[in-house]
Amino acid sequence: VPNPSDIATVLVTGCSGFLGRHCAEALVRNGFRVHAVSRTRSGLAADGITWHSLDLHARGAAENLIAMLRPSHLLHLAWVTAPDCYRDAAENLDWLEASLALVKAFGEQDGQRFVGAGSCAEYDPGAGPCVEDATPIRAASLYGKSKAAFWMATQAYAQRYGFSAAWGRVFLPYGPGDEPRRLVPSLLAALTAGTPINVTEGTQVRDFVYVTDVADLLVRLLGMSEAKGAYNVGTGRGTSVREVIERVADHFHARELVHFGARPGREDEPPSLVADMTKVERVLGWRAATSIEKGIERLLPKTEVSPPASNPWQGGPGSCVS
Amino acid sequence: VPNPSDIATVLVTGCSGFLGRHCAEALVRNGFRVHAVSRTRSGLAADGITWHSLDLHARGAAENLIAMLRPSHLLHLAWVTAPDCYRDAAENLDWLEASLALVKAFGEQDGQRFVGAGSCAEYDPGAGPCVEDATPIRAASLYGKSKAAFWMATQAYAQRYGFSAAWGRVFLPYGPGDEPRRLVPSLLAALTAGTPINVTEGTQVRDFVYVTDVADLLVRLLGMSEAKGAYNVGTGRGTSVREVIERVADHFHARELVHFGARPGREDEPPSLVADMTKVERVLGWRAATSIEKGIERLLPKTEVSPPASNPWQGGPGSCVS
Repeated sequence: VPNPSDIATVLVTGCSGFLGRHCAEALVRNGFRVHAVSRTRSGLAADGITWHSLDLHARGAAENLIAMLRPSHLLHLAWVTAPDCYRDAAENLDWLEASLALVKAFGEQDGQRFVGAGSCAEYDPGAGPCVEDATPIRAASLYGKSKAAFWMATQAYAQRYGFSAAWGRVFLPYGPGDEPRRLVPSLLAALTAGTPINVTEGTQVRDFVYVTDVADLLVRLLGMSEAKGAYNVGTGRGTSVREVIERVADHFHARELVHFGARPGREDEPPSLVADMTKVERVLGWRAATSIEKGIERLLPKTEVSPPASNPWQGGPGSCVS
Repeated sequence: VPNPSDIATVLVTGCSGFLGRHCAEALVRNGFRVHAVSRTRSGLAADGITWHSLDLHARGAAENLIAMLRPSHLLHLAWVTAPDCYRDAAENLDWLEASLALVKAFGEQDGQRFVGAGSCAEYDPGAGPCVEDATPIRAASLYGKSKAAFWMATQAYAQRYGFSAAWGRVFLPYGPGDEPRRLVPSLLAALTAGTPINVTEGTQVRDFVYVTDVADLLVRLLGMSEAKGAYNVGTGRGTSVREVIERVADHFHARELVHFGARPGREDEPPSLVADMTKVERVLGWRAATSIEKGIERLLPKTEVSPPASNPWQGGPGSCVS
C-alpha cells in the first residue's frame, strides 16, 4: 500500500469525453488520485473519481478549482470535438483562451507535470510521415492552429513556472465509446441495421489508433516527467479509410450497402496523415498494442452475421451512387 | 489629395519604442492615419500622430480603444524589450496575454490587416539560415516561445474573424534611437568617451538590419494585405559581432579599448542567426537598402576622430582580460 502522500493528484479535463473516460480508467489503475472536470457530470462516483461540475470557460473557474485542489498533475483533454464542426468552430478560440487560463493557474499553484491532447491536425499534412520535431507545424484548420498555439504557449508557461510539459498529438482514435457520428460507429450502426450508408471514396490514409492505446500512452506520458515535448499518439501504420470500411462491411457480408463516393470528400482533407513513432519508441519504450485488424475485430458484434435478408442494392459496386 | 475615407487608420502599439518611432514616421509618410498606444506618451503630437496613453495589460483597455477607433490596420510592436532581461522575463507571458486580447478585439471590430513584430528567436537556431516556412520553430527563450505562440494564435484569430495577418520576424535591428545598453550604442558611448569596454569573444554571427529598413519592410507589409504569413526582417547577410565591433573601433583608432572575451558569452547564445530573404524578395520585391558598412558609417560621429590621448591599455590585444 503506497503512502497517501506519494499518491499523485491529477486533474483531468474532458474526463467525460471519448478519450477522457478511457484515460480516467487507466489513471485509477495506475494509482493516481483522479479529479475530473465536466460540464455535465458531478459528484463522487463509485469508480474512485471525484467529479467537479464546472464550465472552464467561466472566468475564474479554472483558477478557483486549481487553487482548491492544487493538483501535481494536469491532464488536459477538454476541447471542442463535435465531429461535424470541430475543425472550423469558433469555439476553438474559446478553448484556447480557457486552456491558457488553466495552464497558467496550474503553474502559479506549483503544478509539476502537464500533459495535453494535441492533434495530428497541427502538422503540415503534405510533408510525409509526421515527425514530432521535424515536420513543420502548419495547420489548415482553426482546430489545428488553436491546438498548436496552445502547445507553444504551454511550453512558455512551463518554462516560466518550472513545470514539466508534454503534448500527445493524437492521430485517428477509434474504439468503444466513440461519438456515434464518427466513421466506425456510424458504419457499425448502419450495417447492423442493414441500411445503406454513403461514404467518401475513402482514399485518404490515416493512422487509426485504438482508444485504450491512446489512454495508455497519455497516462504513461503523465507519469514520466522527464519526457518533455511533443509525442505522437498513433501506431506508425497508415490504413485507408476504404480498407477500414471494407473490413467492417465484410464482417456483415454487406459491401453492397456501402456507397463509396456517394459522399463528397472534404476539399481540405489531406491524402495521408500517419505518425512516425520513432521518438515514442525510443524515449518512452512504447508501441501500440492494438492493430487496426484487432481493433476492428473487438468492435464487431460477437455473433456471426448472415447476409441481410433483403438487399435493395443488388447491382454490386457498379451501381453505387458516386 | 486622397479622399479622407480612403485613408487607412492604423493603430500602432509600442509606438514610442525603437522600432515604433521609425515605423510611425514611415506610416505618416505613406499616408496612414496613425493612432499610437504608449504607456508613457499621450496627446496629439505635431507629427500628425494621435497618441493614446494606455496600459495594454489593463483588462478591457485594448478592447475599449479598438471599439472606439475601429482601426482597419493594426501594427503590433509592443512587447518586453529590456536588453538585459527580455529573453527570460515573466513579462513575456503578460505580453502574450495582452496581445491575444488585442488581436481578438481587432477581429471582433472588423479589423482588416494585422502585422506584428516577431523575432528570429522563434527559429531553431541550429538549422542554418532561417527560412520562414521551413526552419522549425523551436525557441529556447521565453521570449521566442511567447512570440511564436502569439503568432500561431493570431493565425487562428485571423481565420476566425476573416482578417489578413502577417508577421515580421525581426533579426538584429540597430540604428538611431537604439536602447543605450545595446551593443552598438554602448560601444559608441565608450569609444567616444575613450573608456575601455568589455565584450564577449564576438564570434556569434548575426543578421544586423538597419532600423529604417525594418520600418520600411513592416510598413510595406502592412499595406500589402494579400501577403499573409511570416516574413523575415533582415538583410540575408551574416556579420560576426566581432567584425561590427572592430569596424566601429577602427573608426576611433581604438581597438585596444575593446576587450574581447572579457565578458562571458551567454551559454544559450546560438553561433549563427541569419535570415534567408528569398521569400521576402519574391513576394514583396523588397531588399534591405542599408548594408552593415553603410549603417555603421551613418552612426559614427561626423568629425574625424584621433587616437585617444591617454590609453591605459598599451599591451595590445594580447593583454586583454579574457
